[in-house]
Amino acid sequence: MGRDISKCSRAELQECKAELDRRYAGYVAENLKLDMSRGKPSGSQLDLTNPVLNKLENYITCDGIDARNYGGLEGIPEARRLFSDLLGIDVDKIIVGGNSSLNLMYDAMMRLYVFGTGGHTPWRKLPAVKFLCPSPGYDRHFLVCEDLGIEMIPVPMTENGPDMDMVEKLVAEDDAIKGIWCVPLYSNPQGVCYSDETVDRLAAMKTAAPDFRIFWDNAYGVHHIYRECKLKDIFGACEAAGNPNRVLYFFSTSKITFPGAGVALVASSAENLKEIRKHMSVQTIGHDKLNQLRTVRYLKDAEGVRRHMRLLADELRPKFDIVLNTLERELAGTGLACWTKPLGGYFVSVDVPDGCAKAVVALAQQAGVKLTGAGAAFPYKKDPRDRNIRIAPTYPTCEELQKAMELFCVCVKLAGVNKLLESK
Amino acid sequence: MGRDISKCSRAELQECKAELDRRYAGYVAENLKLDMSRGKPSGSQLDLTNPVLNKLENYITCDGIDARNYGGLEGIPEARRLFSDLLGIDVDKIIVGGNSSLNLMYDAMMRLYVFGTGGHTPWRKLPAVKFLCPSPGYDRHFLVCEDLGIEMIPVPMTENGPDMDMVEKLVAEDDAIKGIWCVPLYSNPQGVCYSDETVDRLAAMKTAAPDFRIFWDNAYGVHHIYRECKLKDIFGACEAAGNPNRVLYFFSTSKITFPGAGVALVASSAENLKEIRKHMSVQTIGHDKLNQLRTVRYLKDAEGVRRHMRLLADELRPKFDIVLNTLERELAGTGLACWTKPLGGYFVSVDVPDGCAKAVVALAQQAGVKLTGAGAAFPYKKDPRDRNIRIAPTYPTCEELQKAMELFCVCVKLAGVNKLLESK
Repeated sequence: MGRDISKCSRAELQECKAELDRRYAGYVAENLKLDMSRGKPSGSQLDLTNPVLNKLENYITCDGIDARNYGGLEGIPEARRLFSDLLGIDVDKIIVGGNSSLNLMYDAMMRLYVFGTGGHTPWRKLPAVKFLCPSPGYDRHFLVCEDLGIEMIPVPMTENGPDMDMVEKLVAEDDAIKGIWCVPLYSNPQGVCYSDETVDRLAAMKTAAPDFRIFWDNAYGVHHIYRECKLKDIFGACEAAGNPNRVLYFFSTSKITFPGAGVALVASSAENLKEIRKHMSVQTIGHDKLNQLRTVRYLKDAEGVRRHMRLLADELRPKFDIVLNTLERELAGTGLACWTKPLGGYFVSVDVPDGCAKAVVALAQQAGVKLTGAGAAFPYKKDPRDRNIRIAPTYPTCEELQKAMELFCVCVKLAGVNKLLESK
Repeated sequence: MGRDISKCSRAELQECKAELDRRYAGYVAENLKLDMSRGKPSGSQLDLTNPVLNKLENYITCDGIDARNYGGLEGIPEARRLFSDLLGIDVDKIIVGGNSSLNLMYDAMMRLYVFGTGGHTPWRKLPAVKFLCPSPGYDRHFLVCEDLGIEMIPVPMTENGPDMDMVEKLVAEDDAIKGIWCVPLYSNPQGVCYSDETVDRLAAMKTAAPDFRIFWDNAYGVHHIYRECKLKDIFGACEAAGNPNRVLYFFSTSKITFPGAGVALVASSAENLKEIRKHMSVQTIGHDKLNQLRTVRYLKDAEGVRRHMRLLADELRPKFDIVLNTLERELAGTGLACWTKPLGGYFVSVDVPDGCAKAVVALAQQAGVKLTGAGAAFPYKKDPRDRNIRIAPTYPTCEELQKAMELFCVCVKLAGVNKLLESK
């Protein structure tokens, strides 16, 4: 436990600052060049997946289709089956697409915006469309809303998911609220796992908008690192609650095999899929079936995915250890930071003193360590308290990460001390 | 040269019909099951590209990027360079995307519809948006317009491209006309190559709509079979005419390497690309760079593509010979059909007597040969004269194709004779 810096006298703070300035200068002198800004796997993590690059010996799918040729909008049967088994989703609900679940989400939002759903007014024709954005959250989700001029309403996160009291109140009152972004397992950036109660309440809540949609981005659905969180079946919960069309479910192998060269899926009710297929079949003749085949041939089946994810967890665990241990050693008890201890996923979320996040990111940047921009995890990039920073530990090597985390902690303390000195 | 059936007496027609009915029944008895409905390559054509399936030994791009990881919205440099060399387009104008140029076209249309371009009113906010559709044309282009409720205006094709007198008149008069679909080389389905004059007139014509766009789908840009048609540089022509932002250029390797597993590109002016990137960067983190690398490693360079296309031409030429020779032998001089003799591309377009196309397709279908639906090559699938049929000879084997073409000719004659008998 460090000294509680927030309780120091001015003289103690100045002493502290002198020491931190020295340490910081030491890092600057090292000319570091490290990137912790995005959730990118490292080269050695990617190496674990290299068999996907092997020659594709057989290009005939299990139903006898030549995957080299046109067709197959819904994806090859073996891919649909694998993801069905892995995620517990009916095969019939799944369309396996191209390389990007973000692309599937963007296009899904675009279809709701342009065409509407279920005979309701297309969102583009409404005076206002709003989306609930549990925050901190995934910046690229928020950019999709921003691109279409959809107003974003931040909702605080709790350890069980979004603040459901607030969510229920908002969606019941305002029919302009058309949906919510969710990363239900190991959420980006906090690593929160939605509780069964959260899933049930999302599925069952009364929404003023009849065409309310949950964008269920299960990006880290199999990304257990320390222990496995179980996620309640959202489809089952929605069906039980009489809201079978409420969910659009997304998943991808971007963080299982290769980012940008994996396969993504959208899953939804028969009624929603019918609408999706109608427009998707105009947009494309089909997605890359050879890459679907490559991916499935490597992963083999649901158990094969879980086996592969254990390899990745072994690769990532030491990195999460470094992040969490360094935070603990350097910042615990200082009164300058609190952070999440995720059981899986790709990120650790750190809250520094109010008004200090931008300063911390700038300090780290000046010393050669690129962090995710402060505020990135909030709608419009505006962290109302300027305190949240996302740590993405996957890309650097362990050695780089150790150094970067030590620097990060120095930056947090330095920014905190500066802030305290200002206010004394 | 056959007998001119259109000039036969009723008795001669009845005799003719009896003979045709016998031949037709013979085909029906064979229980054929052949598909000439889509422009799909055959298995043996695809085999020519199998080296693309080989192990990807090296996944580092020419600028040192690990193609297994995230990033690179514009495509890997070696892919952009290859297509730049091949098509004579500035590298800076090119974004190499995913597996489908149709997808790039759909998304481009969607952006114009939702966001507009150059500060002009987004098309979704206009009371009417119209597109010129040179017809017969590519059915999937027309479906894009239909999906978005864009009104389609058919424009007749000539041997030099769309009827430019009509095009110029229409676009000058009506500011609701926002664009035109073009397949400028070996057009689908007629195999028409746009003349230099057509290119120049498209580039220079005065349009009432300031945000008029040419969707330039050069799908068959390197698909020479008998002889190479040269296509004038549309970008150069547009720039020379002071309309640098008029063109959205599309291309793909779907009919070079593997359909649905190749790479596609969109090319446009710096100003247009800036808009495209703005939204595309929200839609996706990047396209499949490993597949771009696979494709470029196989094709190597522009000359490599041309070499590969000569292999494909050798594969396709016998099929086009079968189609053209059988049409000549069975239908020349009968007064019942005329057809195009394309120098490249993927199709042959046959005009049968007015009001007979649907009947021909139905007769062929009943005898086990699936043709492209009659009318498919026209907006709203409505061939005003019900006379056009697209022959797609690439998928069947030569033996199958020979049989299918003989049946086709019998169907044309039978439908023609039936029609003549009705009217006598």
